[in-house]
Amino acid sequence: MPRPLVLHPDRLFPADPGVRALARSLYEQVRDLPIISPHGHTDPDWFATDEPFGDAVKLLLAPDHYLYRMLYSQGVPLERLGVGSRRRVAGIEPREAWREFASRYSLFRGTPSALWLDQVFGHVFGLTVRLDADTADLYFDSIGEALQTPAFRPRALFDRFKIEVLATTESPTDTLASHLAIRRSGWPGRVISTYRPDPVVDPEHEQFQDALERFAGLTGQDVHSWRGYLEAHRLRRAAFAEVGATATDHGHPTAATADLSEREAQALLGKILSGRFSAADAELFRAQALTEMAQMSLDDGLVMQIHPGAFRNHNRAVFESHGRDRGADIPQPTDYVRALKPLLDRLGNDPRLSMIVFTLDESAYSRELAPLAGHYPVLKLGPAWWFHDSPEGMRRFRERTTETAGFYNTVGFNDDTRAFLSIPARHDVARRVDCAFLARLVAEHRLTEEEAAETAVDLAYNLPKRAYKL
Amino acid sequence: MPRPLVLHPDRLFPADPGVRALARSLYEQVRDLPIISPHGHTDPDWFATDEPFGDAVKLLLAPDHYLYRMLYSQGVPLERLGVGSRRRVAGIEPREAWREFASRYSLFRGTPSALWLDQVFGHVFGLTVRLDADTADLYFDSIGEALQTPAFRPRALFDRFKIEVLATTESPTDTLASHLAIRRSGWPGRVISTYRPDPVVDPEHEQFQDALERFAGLTGQDVHSWRGYLEAHRLRRAAFAEVGATATDHGHPTAATADLSEREAQALLGKILSGRFSAADAELFRAQALTEMAQMSLDDGLVMQIHPGAFRNHNRAVFESHGRDRGADIPQPTDYVRALKPLLDRLGNDPRLSMIVFTLDESAYSRELAPLAGHYPVLKLGPAWWFHDSPEGMRRFRERTTETAGFYNTVGFNDDTRAFLSIPARHDVARRVDCAFLARLVAEHRLTEEEAAETAVDLAYNLPKRAYKL
Amino acid sequence: MPRPLVLHPDRLFPADPGVRALARSLYEQVRDLPIISPHGHTDPDWFATDEPFGDAVKLLLAPDHYLYRMLYSQGVPLERLGVGSRRRVAGIEPREAWREFASRYSLFRGTPSALWLDQVFGHVFGLTVRLDADTADLYFDSIGEALQTPAFRPRALFDRFKIEVLATTESPTDTLASHLAIRRSGWPGRVISTYRPDPVVDPEHEQFQDALERFAGLTGQDVHSWRGYLEAHRLRRAAFAEVGATATDHGHPTAATADLSEREAQALLGKILSGRFSAADAELFRAQALTEMAQMSLDDGLVMQIHPGAFRNHNRAVFESHGRDRGADIPQPTDYVRALKPLLDRLGNDPRLSMIVFTLDESAYSRELAPLAGHYPVLKLGPAWWFHDSPEGMRRFRERTTETAGFYNTVGFNDDTRAFLSIPARHDVARRVDCAFLARLVAEHRLTEEEAAETAVDLAYNLPKRAYKL
Repeated sequence: MPRPLVLHPDRLFPADPGVRALARSLYEQVRDLPIISPHGHTDPDWFATDEPFGDAVKLLLAPDHYLYRMLYSQGVPLERLGVGSRRRVAGIEPREAWREFASRYSLFRGTPSALWLDQVFGHVFGLTVRLDADTADLYFDSIGEALQTPAFRPRALFDRFKIEVLATTESPTDTLASHLAIRRSGWPGRVISTYRPDPVVDPEHEQFQDALERFAGLTGQDVHSWRGYLEAHRLRRAAFAEVGATATDHGHPTAATADLSEREAQALLGKILSGRFSAADAELFRAQALTEMAQMSLDDGLVMQIHPGAFRNHNRAVFESHGRDRGADIPQPTDYVRALKPLLDRLGNDPRLSMIVFTLDESAYSRELAPLAGHYPVLKLGPAWWFHDSPEGMRRFRERTTETAGFYNTVGFNDDTRAFLSIPARHDVARRVDCAFLARLVAEHRLTEEEAAETAVDLAYNLPKRAYKL
Repeated sequence: MPRPLVLHPDRLFPADPGVRALARSLYEQVRDLPIISPHGHTDPDWFATDEPFGDAVKLLLAPDHYLYRMLYSQGVPLERLGVGSRRRVAGIEPREAWREFASRYSLFRGTPSALWLDQVFGHVFGLTVRLDADTADLYFDSIGEALQTPAFRPRALFDRFKIEVLATTESPTDTLASHLAIRRSGWPGRVISTYRPDPVVDPEHEQFQDALERFAGLTGQDVHSWRGYLEAHRLRRAAFAEVGATATDHGHPTAATADLSEREAQALLGKILSGRFSAADAELFRAQALTEMAQMSLDDGLVMQIHPGAFRNHNRAVFESHGRDRGADIPQPTDYVRALKPLLDRLGNDPRLSMIVFTLDESAYSRELAPLAGHYPVLKLGPAWWFHDSPEGMRRFRERTTETAGFYNTVGFNDDTRAFLSIPARHDVARRVDCAFLARLVAEHRLTEEEAAETAVDLAYNLPKRAYKL
Repeated sequence: MPRPLVLHPDRLFPADPGVRALARSLYEQVRDLPIISPHGHTDPDWFATDEPFGDAVKLLLAPDHYLYRMLYSQGVPLERLGVGSRRRVAGIEPREAWREFASRYSLFRGTPSALWLDQVFGHVFGLTVRLDADTADLYFDSIGEALQTPAFRPRALFDRFKIEVLATTESPTDTLASHLAIRRSGWPGRVISTYRPDPVVDPEHEQFQDALERFAGLTGQDVHSWRGYLEAHRLRRAAFAEVGATATDHGHPTAATADLSEREAQALLGKILSGRFSAADAELFRAQALTEMAQMSLDDGLVMQIHPGAFRNHNRAVFESHGRDRGADIPQPTDYVRALKPLLDRLGNDPRLSMIVFTLDESAYSRELAPLAGHYPVLKLGPAWWFHDSPEGMRRFRERTTETAGFYNTVGFNDDTRAFLSIPARHDVARRVDCAFLARLVAEHRLTEEEAAETAVDLAYNLPKRAYKL
C-alpha cells in the first residue's frame, strides 16, 4: 500500500503556533513573486531548441551530483545510477537506474534533496504517493509520459515556474550559440549568460591549454602577451554582455587575489604558458586574474561573483574514471581577510565595483564575511551555498551574518542548479526559511511585522534584482 | 504618519509561551541590579568635567563605528556622517548627517545597534515614534534639547543608569589627569581606569616610537634596557591601580605568548628599537610582553584581559584618509592552544593570576576556549565580544561554552563601548539573552528554576564583580 | 532541608508542547532498546573478576577527568579530589574528597556531567535528594553501602543496564588476560576488546620504546624491520579479533595519513627507532601507520576508527606531576580534506574498508566531514565526541551533518567512557537528543512520523550494530 506524498503547506515553518502564524503570513506575501535566478547551471540549449527532456533518470538523477554522491557513499556504483564514465555511457537501463535510486530514497531523509524532489514530484508532476521501491515504476512511467507532453517542454515550464530571469553559466570559449539562438527565436523568456572564465584562468584546470587556444582563436588576440590575454577577456565579456550577462563568476580553490605590476604579470603568464609552473604560480595567476576581472568590471559594469573553497575532484579514482563534477568536491577552510586584501586595497572603495562573495566554510560567516561586507562598499554576501543551500544552512547564514552585515548587504537567493525542474522548489525553500527567520525576529520583538514583510519581499525579489543589475 | 516606537517588555525572550514565562520571571530578578561595567571605552573626562554632551551626531553617530561602518558599506561617504578625516573635520552640518543616518535606519534591521539605539531613544530620551527620514528632525531636536538639561549631564546619567562601577581604558602614556580630577572632585561615582599598554607593546602600532618616548618620560626609566622597560610598566601599572584600575587589557592581533630569557628579551628589544625588525620580531615582542604582564600580575594582582584576533585597519584607503578605529577592523582565525602555551607553561597553575580571554573567532568557543577555561585555574572566558555582542552571538557563546566550561568559568557581561548612553541597553540585552538561555534549560529540565535564578544573578552581577576584583 | 532530585520524564525534549509530544512518542520506541556500546574505556577486569567497585570517589570521581578538570579549573588541587600524582596516591580521605566535590556541584550546572550523574544518582542508586554540601555524607554512605551488595557488582549492573555488547579498548601490548578470563568464565555478557595501537604507533608517546619492546616480545617479530613491524600488528589484530574485537581505534593528534613505499617506510622506521627524529618524522610515521592499518582491515575486516585533534597533556606542570589523561587535553583545528587524501587515494573506494571518523573541531562537521562521508563509500561519521558528547553538541552534530551526509552515513552513539555506571545515562541522553531533533523535523514537516520512528530506532540500535559489525 503506497504511502501518500504530502507537501504540508506549513513545511519548514517553526513549530510554535504563534511564530508559525507569523511565518505563514510573511510567506503569503512572497510565495507568488516571480523567480529571479541570477546564478545557475541550466543548459541554454534547452530553451533554444525547446526539445522534450527525456526520462526521469536523464532529467533528475544522472545530472544531479547531490543525489548520486549520497548513493555512491552507500556503495552503489555510479554506473548503476546512469552516470557514465569517461570511457563509456552507463550501460544500465534507465528504469533499472531509477529503481536503484527509488529503493534507497530513505537515505535522503532530512536532506534538502528530498525536500526539492518531493516538491518536484508533487507540484510539477502531480504525483500523490511517496517514492520507494514499490512506486519506482509508477514514478518512472508517469514522469516519462509527462515529459513527452507540450506542457513539460522547457519553455512551457519556464513560464509555468514564473521565472522572470534565468542566468546560465558559460566558459569564455563558448560561442554562445544557444543564447544567440534564444534571442533570434523571438521567445520572450529572459535567459541570460554569465561569464565564467575558470578554464582560461586556472592553469591547473585540465583543459587550460586547449581552452586558451580556443580563447585566442575566438578573440583574435595573442594570449601569450599579458595585454592580449586581458584584451581577449574584455572582448568575451562584451560578447557575454550582448547576450544579457550582467555578471561574472569565479570558482577558485581559494579567495586569493593579487596586485602585480604588468611586468610581473607578463612574466608569470610566460611561466604558466611554458607549462613549468608550481602550485604557487598557478595560485598567483588565478589571484591576479581576479583583480583584473574586478578592474574590468569598473568599465563594463559586470557584477563579480567569487565562489571559493572547494577542493575539486578529491576522489582520485573517480576523477580518473568519471572526470570532474562527480560529487567529489570537498570544501576546505577558506581565508578571506588576507586573501581579498590586494584586490580591496586597489578597488575596495570604488562605487563602480560590486563583488558578491560566497563560502563553503561557515566558520567565516560571522568571523570574516559579515564584518567585511558590513564595511566595504564593494562587497555583498552571496546566499548559503552548495552544501549549505539547505534549511539549516540558510538559517545559520542568517543567524550569523545579519547582526553584523544586516539584510541589505546580502543578495537574496541563488539556486545555483542544473536541475531545472527543482528551481521553484529551491526558491520556495529559501523563501520559507527566510520567512521563518524573520518570524522569529518578530516574535522576539526584534522587528515589527511591517519591517519583516518589507524585508521578506526584498530578500525574495528586490535584492537579487538590484544586486545583479537585472 | 510616524510609526510608534514600541519597546516590548518581552523582547528577546523565546516565543514559546511557557519558556517566555520562565524567562520573564528570571529577568525580573536581574533587571534592576546595578550595572557592573568592568571593560569599556567611555571618556573619563566626561565625568571629570560633567559638561553637556553636544548633539545627537556628536554623541551617538560620529563616534560609533558600528553605525557608520554599516552606512559606509552601503555607499555613504564617512564625511556625510560627520566622521572627520585625518586632514579635516567633516564639513557637514550635524543635522544633515543625522538625516543621512535616519533615512537609512532600516539598514540596521536585525542588528544589535538597532536594539541598543531604540532603547536609548525610548528609555533615555522618551521618544515615542520610530526613527526614519520623516522623524529625523524631531529626533535631532529632541535629543539636542535634552542634552542641554542637567538631567542629561554625564554624572546625572551615571546615577540614573545605576552604574556601580565603570572602567575606562587608557594608554600607559596617559597622565590619568581625568581620573585624578574625578577623584579630587568628591563625586562618589566609581569610574576607574584599565591599563592598556598596546601603544608601547606593539612595535607595529603607528605611534609606538612616540609612545615609548613618553613612557620613558613619565616613568623616568631607560626603556632601552629590558629591565627599565619592564620597570616602566610596573610604575605605570601602580599609577593605574591608584586610580582604581583592577585590570589590564591587551588587544593583540593574535594570542601569541612567549617565554624568552632576559638576554633574549634584551636583544629583541634592541632590534625593535632599531626600527629594523620583521613582522615575526614584532609578534615575538608582543608575545613576550604578554607573559611579562602576567608575571607582573602575580605581584600587583591586576586581572589580565586578552582580546586578540582583529586584523586592524584592513581598509588601506580608509586608514590613510581617516586613521584607525574607523570600522575597518576584521576578525581572523585565532589560535589559542599553541599561542597561550608558553605563558601557561610558566604561570598557568598559579592561583595569583587571573586571565580573561576573549575571541572574535567563534569556532574557538567549543574547540579551544571552553576546554582551556574548563581546566586551567588562571583562565576565564570573556563574554561574546564586539561583532558577537549581539543576541545571536551571546546565545552561541552560551550554547558552545557552557557544557564544557560551565557558567562559572565565565565572567558576566562587558559592554566594551564608547557609547555611554547605550550602556543600560547593552546590559539589558545581555541579561535578557542569558535569561532566555537559562529559561530554555529550565524548560528542558536541565536546570531547576531555583538554580537558574541564582545563575542569572551571578551572570548579571556577582561574576563580573568577582572576576574583576571589584 | 534537602532539595528533591527530580529526573523529569521529559528532560531534554523541546519545550513546545507539540514538538515535545512528538519527541516523547519517538523516545517511547527507543527508550528500552538494548545498549550497543561499541567504543569505550571500561576496565575488562571488572567483568573478569566481578569484584565490588569500592567507594563513590574511587568509582565516580577520581577516574572521571570531566569532573576533576572542572574542579581544578576553579582552584581545587587534584589531590583534594582523590586524584593521585605520579609519586604518590592522594592522601585525602575519600569522604573528604567527596565533600570537596559535593560542595561545588553547582559548578556543573548546564553540563552533561550533571545530567549523567543525576541519572546515576537517581536511577542507579535510588537517591531522591540533590547532591550538595549538606547531602554529601548521605550520598557517600548510600553509594558506598550499595556498592557492597551483589546487585551492584559489575556483571549484575551489566545485565541491569541491558547492555548487549560492550567494547573496551586495549593496547597491542596488553595480554588480553582479562578478556580471556571473561570468555573462560562462562559468563554470557558480551564484552569485547578494541585494538588501539597508539603506544606502538606514536613515536612521541612517552612509553613508545618500552611498548615496542613488549610488542616484539609478544609477537616474536623483529619490529626493527618494517615487515616485522607490520606482521606484529597483524598478529596482535588477530589476537584481538579472537577476543571479539571488531574494530581498531587511533587517537592521533591529527588525521594525517601517508602512502610511503616500503623502502621509505623502512627508512622512516629506522630513524624513529634511532631516537633522533623530528616532530615531522613522528607525524609521518603515525600517518603511514594509519594507512597500513586500513590496508590490514581489507584482510581482517576490522572497522577503523580515527579520533584525531587533541593536543595531549597541554598543561606541562600537571603532566609532569600527574601524568597523562588528567583533563588537560585540548582540541585544536583539524584538517581532514588533505590529511585523509593519501589513504583515500589508495583505499577510499574499496568496499572491504570501513572507517569511522570523529572530530573535536565542530567547524569541520558541515565543511569537511559531512561532504566526505556523503561521498566516500569507506567513510562514516562517528557521533559528537568527548567535549561535544552533550545535548548541545549532539544537536549541532545532527544540524550540521544530516543535510549533506544524511542519517545513514552516521553510526549511532558511542559512550566512549570509563564511567561504567553512567553508560545508561549517556545512551539515554543521546536517544533523547536524537528524538528531539527528529521531532523537530516532523513538526516542520520535513519527515513523516513514520520515517522519524524508523530513523530513531536505527540511530539507537541498528546503525551502531551494523557499522561495528556486531
